[in-house]
Parts: sequence; structure tokens; C-alpha cells
Amino acid sequence: MSFLRKFSSDFISGTRRISTCKFFSRNFTAATATGVNIMASSLSLSSSNIGKRNFTSTTKNNDDGLPKDHPVWKLGRLNHIAIAVPDLEKSSKFWREVMGAESVSEIKPQPDHGVYTVFVSLGNTKIELLGEYNDRSPIHNFLYKNKSGGIHHVCIEVDDVNVAVKDLVSKNVRSLDPEPKIGAHGKPVVFLHPKDCGGVLVELQQQN
Amino acid sequence: MSFLRKFSSDFISGTRRISTCKFFSRNFTAATATGVNIMASSLSLSSSNIGKRNFTSTTKNNDDGLPKDHPVWKLGRLNHIAIAVPDLEKSSKFWREVMGAESVSEIKPQPDHGVYTVFVSLGNTKIELLGEYNDRSPIHNFLYKNKSGGIHHVCIEVDDVNVAVKDLVSKNVRSLDPEPKIGAHGKPVVFLHPKDCGGVLVELQQQN
Repeated sequence: MSFLRKFSSDFISGTRRISTCKFFSRNFTAATATGVNIMASSLSLSSSNIGKRNFTSTTKNNDDGLPKDHPVWKLGRLNHIAIAVPDLEKSSKFWREVMGAESVSEIKPQPDHGVYTVFVSLGNTKIELLGEYNDRSPIHNFLYKNKSGGIHHVCIEVDDVNVAVKDLVSKNVRSLDPEPKIGAHGKPVVFLHPKDCGGVLVELQQQN
Repeated sequence: MSFLRKFSSDFISGTRRISTCKFFSRNFTAATATGVNIMASSLSLSSSNIGKRNFTSTTKNNDDGLPKDHPVWKLGRLNHIAIAVPDLEKSSKFWREVMGAESVSEIKPQPDHGVYTVFVSLGNTKIELLGEYNDRSPIHNFLYKNKSGGIHHVCIEVDDVNVAVKDLVSKNVRSLDPEPKIGAHGKPVVFLHPKDCGGVLVELQQQN
């Protein structure tokens, strides 16, 4: 067996499966094709009144040189890359001692989100290591299919998450949440459907 | 079928498979457990003489307060997240027009690496969109298994890629390349084995 084939079969222990719509919304009853009729989890804090703006217009139509469909929200920095791992202590040690990362946080339980988190600083951004809190964790299926772990999602900051999600939904990008919720970092977040984002689960987070 | 189950089955079209060891090294003949006996590709430029330092010691053993096994190389910024996509024009348009990214480059052919690339600026870092150059592309199998695309690897800068890889191999982190090669950005790079990095394919790139 060639190295390449062995490598592939070693690494790929199963299909990748993202149970991300459970990440901040645990209990679903029904969903439309746009994914906006998902019942919000009682565990998540609604942010519907946080940073809310007038939604009557999400596009500029003046003569400032921008295209008429240019969104009034702004895509910002990469906040973090989330990596789901089977052994959080081992992974923390890897990034701290083997890779020599500048800063690796302690393990923090996030029972409301079903995960433990560790943040690894990379200078310009950070890695968020995710470990299962229990077998009902939103990353349980992902780790079942990816025994060694893997990249779960990317989180990008936006200046106004409410306006952003409304604009994106109007452009047929499905949101996995009916409205922004408070994420693990204490800020409003939404998750976008991977199939509408080039196969990548994208989290948008309010930057301030 | 619940939205969650439908979402999972829609999104997961097969196993994720990373043919990354072909990324800069096309032809393999044999490999040891440490992955260092891989025959280098004739397509790749060796960087063995670029930024080479004295390898006699990769650890500090003085009294500067650092642990004795602290590497003398330094992990730096996240250079990019690489996303393999089935339709590069469509994905470029998505990041430019739907997400409103600050800057989205033109599509650039990289025949030596078997891919087309597009760079999406996120302010503090960038996304590298990868499209297949031909059916011998190193991302061909990945896209075959992930019809919608997905995150292929992350690239982190290091101050000395030669010292870094020597140190990491001594700590049982397998390199997919026997020595750094010139990557798509014109700088020396190595890829580390995903199984040794929490399931994530990590590219290390010389920062200067």
C-alpha cells in the first residue's frame, strides 16, 4: 500500500458530518428550506434586542459609487478557527509544548453549548479547540466520524450581525438560526448553512 | 426527516479525504512511519539551502527561564485558511458580492501545484480558495468526497521552517515532506501529518 493510500485510509475514519445547527440551538422541531423556522433553544440567550437596527433597507442605492446591492454590513476579521478534538488536554499540550504557541488558555467548560473550549493564540487570530462536554454535545457526531478531530467551523466578525443575516438570507444564504444568539464568547452570533458557503460552516460574530 | 438529519445527509456526500501529501510532492515511492522518506517531486523546488541554520541544537538549555525543551523556532500568524471548492468562479463571486469581502483576487493558475488559487482578504488574514487545475490535482479526491467543497488545510507562519520541521520531527510530528519546498506563495513550506495535529492538515510557511 502506498504511503498516500495508507495516509488517506488512516486519516479518514469516516464521513465528516457537522452537527452544527445544534451548536447553539439544541432542540429543533421544524425547518423550512431557508432554515429560519428553527425553534430556538431555551438554553440560548436571544440577542434580538442587542445592537438591533432598522431593517427597512439592507442595501445602498445612492450615488456613492457602490453597487446598488452592496450590503451595508461589513465583513471583518477572522475571529477564530474552531477545531473539534477527541482529547482536549492532549491537544492543549500539543499547541503549548510541541508547537510553542504564544498563549494557550485553560480548559473552560461551556455547559450551555455542550463543549469545553481552549483558545490558542496565533498572534493575528486564534484557534478554538472544542472538546465534548457530554454525549449530547453538538460536536459528538462530528468526532464520531472524525476520530482524530478536524476543523469544525470558521468564525468571521461583522459590524452588525442582525443586518448581515437579514441581507444574506435575502440572497439565499441560509442561516441555521432564526436570529442571532449569544455565543460562547458572550457576543451575538449566527451560523450559515455550509452548502451555501462552499462547504464551510461559517459563524458570523458581532465584532463589538 | 428533521432539518438536522436532512442537513447532515445533504452536506455529507462522502468521506473527507485529504490528498495533501501530493500538494507539493506529486510522486511517492515509499515512506517510513515518520513520513520523511518520501521521494521529493521533480516539480517542486527544494529550499534546503534557503534560510538554513545550524541544526545542532533545537532546544534552549540556558537559564533564560524557558523550559529546556522549548523550541528555538517561533510559531507566528495564521497566513491563510485553504478552502477547496468545486467552482472557483462561483466561490469568488460569493465572497466578493454576497459576503462583501474587502478584496478578492483574480483566479491564478498554479500548474506546478495542480490548482487554481484565489485570495480573499479578511483583514487580519486571508482565505485561499483552491480549484482543480486538472483531474490529477492534489485536491481531486477531496472534492470527489466533498461535493460542496470544504476546508482543506490551515497555513501558519514560522520564523524558521527548517528548524521548525526538524524540531517537530524529533517530537514525533510527521512531516509530509522530507524538507521544505517552495509553495504557491513563493516561500518555503512543509505540511504536517493531520493525525499528529488533531486531525488538521497544517502547513508551515517561512514568514520572511
